[in-house]
Amino acid sequence: MSNSAHMIATVNKYVEAFARKDVGLIREIYADDATVEDPVGTDVHRGIAAIAAFYEGSFGADARLALTGPVRCAGNAAAFAFEVRVGAMKIEVIDVFEFDAAGKVVAMRAYWGPENVSQ
Amino acid sequence: MSNSAHMIATVNKYVEAFARKDVGLIREIYADDATVEDPVGTDVHRGIAAIAAFYEGSFGADARLALTGPVRCAGNAAAFAFEVRVGAMKIEVIDVFEFDAAGKVVAMRAYWGPENVSQ
Repeated sequence: MSNSAHMIATVNKYVEAFARKDVGLIREIYADDATVEDPVGTDVHRGIAAIAAFYEGSFGADARLALTGPVRCAGNAAAFAFEVRVGAMKIEVIDVFEFDAAGKVVAMRAYWGPENVSQ
Repeated sequence: MSNSAHMIATVNKYVEAFARKDVGLIREIYADDATVEDPVGTDVHRGIAAIAAFYEGSFGADARLALTGPVRCAGNAAAFAFEVRVGAMKIEVIDVFEFDAAGKVVAMRAYWGPENVSQ
């Protein structure tokens, strides 16, 4: 299931989840035992309940995602660069999704820091 | 040593290593016991000797790198999107560098697949 077409479709579904503020799509994307580390170096959200709560917070802030280049698929992983806009704030991020054998995202790591935040 | 300024400087040194075909810069960037997985899912190059040989091959092919967005620093890692040009071929890649306590890259993972190669 972790072929490139599936992984690219999952990334597009992720962008759509933000556009629609649809945590149901988040639940489709992630494995029940997934982890989310956003940004890398901070506390990890473990399990789908914690992950859904994390995204509900982002959706409540009206965060919008736009990819800034093609999804890069390699092995069981996909990496993608994007901009998040929250009001007048822009954050430039790279996410890495790792997929399990069932095609679900089992680990997400988000790379961004203060240098990537602008108004 | 793994602050953002150092990590960004290391990424710029990496781009410069390609421009100058300078494996000495590669030896400065990587830890002696580093690993390079390029692309993710293929055999890992382990140790500085294997890594230097890997880059000498890339330099021999006259590969040129250009960043396509800002370096994203988070925790002990930096992620960056770039294009590689080899002759008329273009490959769109995202690399992730993990740094050790001494500020050396101890693990590199490159994300790209056939969908990211164009002429």
